[in-house]
Amino acid sequence: MDLVNDIIGKVSLGDLAFLELKGRLPTPQESAVFNAIVVTLVEHGMTPSAIAARLTYFGAPESLQGAVAAGLLGLGERFGGSIEGAARTLQEGLQGVKPGADLRTVAREIVAVHKQRKRLIPGLGHPIHKPIDPRTPRLFAVAAGNGLSGRYVELMGLIAEEAGAALGRELPVNATGAIAALASELGIPWRVARGIAVMARAIGLVAHIQEEIEDPTASEIWSRVEDEASGHMGSGQG
Amino acid sequence: MDLVNDIIGKVSLGDLAFLELKGRLPTPQESAVFNAIVVTLVEHGMTPSAIAARLTYFGAPESLQGAVAAGLLGLGERFGGSIEGAARTLQEGLQGVKPGADLRTVAREIVAVHKQRKRLIPGLGHPIHKPIDPRTPRLFAVAAGNGLSGRYVELMGLIAEEAGAALGRELPVNATGAIAALASELGIPWRVARGIAVMARAIGLVAHIQEEIEDPTASEIWSRVEDEASGHMGSGQG
Amino acid sequence: MDLVNDIIGKVSLGDLAFLELKGRLPTPQESAVFNAIVVTLVEHGMTPSAIAARLTYFGAPESLQGAVAAGLLGLGERFGGSIEGAARTLQEGLQGVKPGADLRTVAREIVAVHKQRKRLIPGLGHPIHKPIDPRTPRLFAVAAGNGLSGRYVELMGLIAEEAGAALGRELPVNATGAIAALASELGIPWRVARGIAVMARAIGLVAHIQEEIEDPTASEIWSRVEDEASGHMGSGQG
Amino acid sequence: MDLVNDIIGKVSLGDLAFLELKGRLPTPQESAVFNAIVVTLVEHGMTPSAIAARLTYFGAPESLQGAVAAGLLGLGERFGGSIEGAARTLQEGLQGVKPGADLRTVAREIVAVHKQRKRLIPGLGHPIHKPIDPRTPRLFAVAAGNGLSGRYVELMGLIAEEAGAALGRELPVNATGAIAALASELGIPWRVARGIAVMARAIGLVAHIQEEIEDPTASEIWSRVEDEASGHMGSGQG
Repeated sequence: MDLVNDIIGKVSLGDLAFLELKGRLPTPQESAVFNAIVVTLVEHGMTPSAIAARLTYFGAPESLQGAVAAGLLGLGERFGGSIEGAARTLQEGLQGVKPGADLRTVAREIVAVHKQRKRLIPGLGHPIHKPIDPRTPRLFAVAAGNGLSGRYVELMGLIAEEAGAALGRELPVNATGAIAALASELGIPWRVARGIAVMARAIGLVAHIQEEIEDPTASEIWSRVEDEASGHMGSGQG
Repeated sequence: MDLVNDIIGKVSLGDLAFLELKGRLPTPQESAVFNAIVVTLVEHGMTPSAIAARLTYFGAPESLQGAVAAGLLGLGERFGGSIEGAARTLQEGLQGVKPGADLRTVAREIVAVHKQRKRLIPGLGHPIHKPIDPRTPRLFAVAAGNGLSGRYVELMGLIAEEAGAALGRELPVNATGAIAALASELGIPWRVARGIAVMARAIGLVAHIQEEIEDPTASEIWSRVEDEASGHMGSGQG
Repeated sequence: MDLVNDIIGKVSLGDLAFLELKGRLPTPQESAVFNAIVVTLVEHGMTPSAIAARLTYFGAPESLQGAVAAGLLGLGERFGGSIEGAARTLQEGLQGVKPGADLRTVAREIVAVHKQRKRLIPGLGHPIHKPIDPRTPRLFAVAAGNGLSGRYVELMGLIAEEAGAALGRELPVNATGAIAALASELGIPWRVARGIAVMARAIGLVAHIQEEIEDPTASEIWSRVEDEASGHMGSGQG
Repeated sequence: MDLVNDIIGKVSLGDLAFLELKGRLPTPQESAVFNAIVVTLVEHGMTPSAIAARLTYFGAPESLQGAVAAGLLGLGERFGGSIEGAARTLQEGLQGVKPGADLRTVAREIVAVHKQRKRLIPGLGHPIHKPIDPRTPRLFAVAAGNGLSGRYVELMGLIAEEAGAALGRELPVNATGAIAALASELGIPWRVARGIAVMARAIGLVAHIQEEIEDPTASEIWSRVEDEASGHMGSGQG
């Protein structure tokens, strides 16, 4: 495709991101699902990543790109890694599984393997949104409404059911799990799943820096943390 | 706006990026222009930034976010900075200028100041696309077609004319200048203009890393550069 | 020099850093002064840079290098830039000045130019260490004791005197100014001066991450900042 | 310890790095071994990391810290990770092993476990330095000469012997293995081992940027890689 004739003014940012990853433009249905995934990941809260970006901008205001880069560097195992992990579980779980096969058996095996190795199943549960993460049904509804709720979405749901049964407590699919399932439906390889979060957060981090330019918070964050680290806060408020 | 009810499945990635920067959703016209700007900046060629990202991934494949961050770090003065510079020139140039004022006078002054200080005018000329950068008329057409070709676009064109006259050679508006003009029409402050390139390139860099996973180039790049640095290539091919 | 025969077991880290920058080993006197500069810059307090590194490690514990990189990214204009600025002032100030020339005239001119442009003179004053930064006399003593207190040190002192006289208040040389003067005595170009801080802080940041591994603080920092950002703290404290 | 009275002018950079990591100054013997390790890691060749730093500086010359950060980001699994892996193998291998125990049995077990899992043993072999990496005997000699060649060094050597026997080919200890053994002798935890490389490379990368300022290579590297990527080189060379 030619940038000038085929893309500028014709393809939206989300669709171009799909094109970059898949080598072709999305169908309208794929576009709806892909955009839904990425916008869910544009976090705008005061995450560790956003705080790191703001503190970096404070020290290096000449380098907006450095502040965004610092923020992205925190999207590792703990945050981006869970999407990767969930997508991997789903994609490896369905590898070689024939159409029409019983996915509950696959789910049960995945749960059993994780339980045996004493490892958490990525994509389940959430510390804050209890008992259910409202983003999950919304994302699943977007997939269903666009005819893209296939075997990965089904498997993710079955894993949640089987995990709940095996561990004796509610373990609903969280937003990470839903995103991993939808990304898998779109054929995005798990090794790149973390990258969708990186794209999305880059947008959010630029917005954080814009906010920081207009209404700086870094100096206050610094002095607060420093006070606390040197014990002033404890004693001063004691 | 509420993420679950108002955004997921309803707002596209490009429009959410606009919302993050401006605090409100774009009109359809603004959306068209904003998306046109950002997609133009999703470079997918073998830029220094892309090479840096690929070499970083080679050393640290556990950290996709690190490779993207390394790539973004190169979007400074030389690349991202030129958009910033052009947007600044336009926005400071029109500051306090009354509606209906003669913009040619403003343009002439801008050219004169740059000439006197022996500084390049950002947003003009281009080493490769001669005599004209095909992205420029396309971007301006998108703006005009959406009723968003206002005083910044006009001023940018006049600066090019005046610069050409003052320096005695063709100095057409390049893509950077067009992007800066359109971003200014959308009310994006020049201090954040570099951030639009950062957003866009984050998408392109994730795609580069996906390509690098599937078809690695870093090792070859490394040995080629190393050979050359140690002089083997010259003598070996002499 | 050969790594195996001439460096390992024979050259210390500080001297190797000098060798890397200058292309030759330091004399014992140069070694003393260079090591003094760099160790002064190994900050171990809870700086914005250290907080950013710790928060990044929290999100990406698989990538120690990413956490250190995030911390280094904050060493820009505000922190590292002041050393650069002071070194530049000194080195450009003495460019072309003949041996034996009256340096007070040079100092007066530097102060006058800064005053006219309403710009701070880098390397003077300090918000915390008042009226004097104890690191300054110590660094100057190390230089003098090693016969390396030359024209740059003299000029730095004269700038402080002239600035104090011109502005009517005490403006003593701070550690940044002393470091810039000593680096200039060692012939380190001002463009690289920021790099000495980068080297030094990389060491300090690795130590921060080691501390973070043993005694994590990031989660607490995060929830504290988040609370404050969402106004809970304010209301909670009446 | 007090910076002004106890450190500036008294403690060298290498010893301060030791102090930062260990919480106390090194003995003269520890200092010799620690400095030997770190200087070995100050690579100054055209590594992928150095190329990434130079390309980044090309795009963002306002941000020396960004260029160094980009270079450090490549010190992951492939490079820094091998030191970490070797140190982990040694430290976990000797955990709970009583003084006087037969270390050959420990070595044999380590080799057997790696062989069974089809995993490379970190710290052995080297593609270039064959049959022996000259840095290894030098590092071991420094340790021995300072009375710090203990059980970790012994175990590393025995692992090499056992691996060679089990796999039927020479697998000598490489510099990474020697560094891991010496770092373990100094009580540096394996989780921080990668950090020693990060410290060391930060110094080397600043020197690369200084060289890049004086004698730029990035533009040439870029056009060479770009040519090759677009196939010009291949066809041009027949």
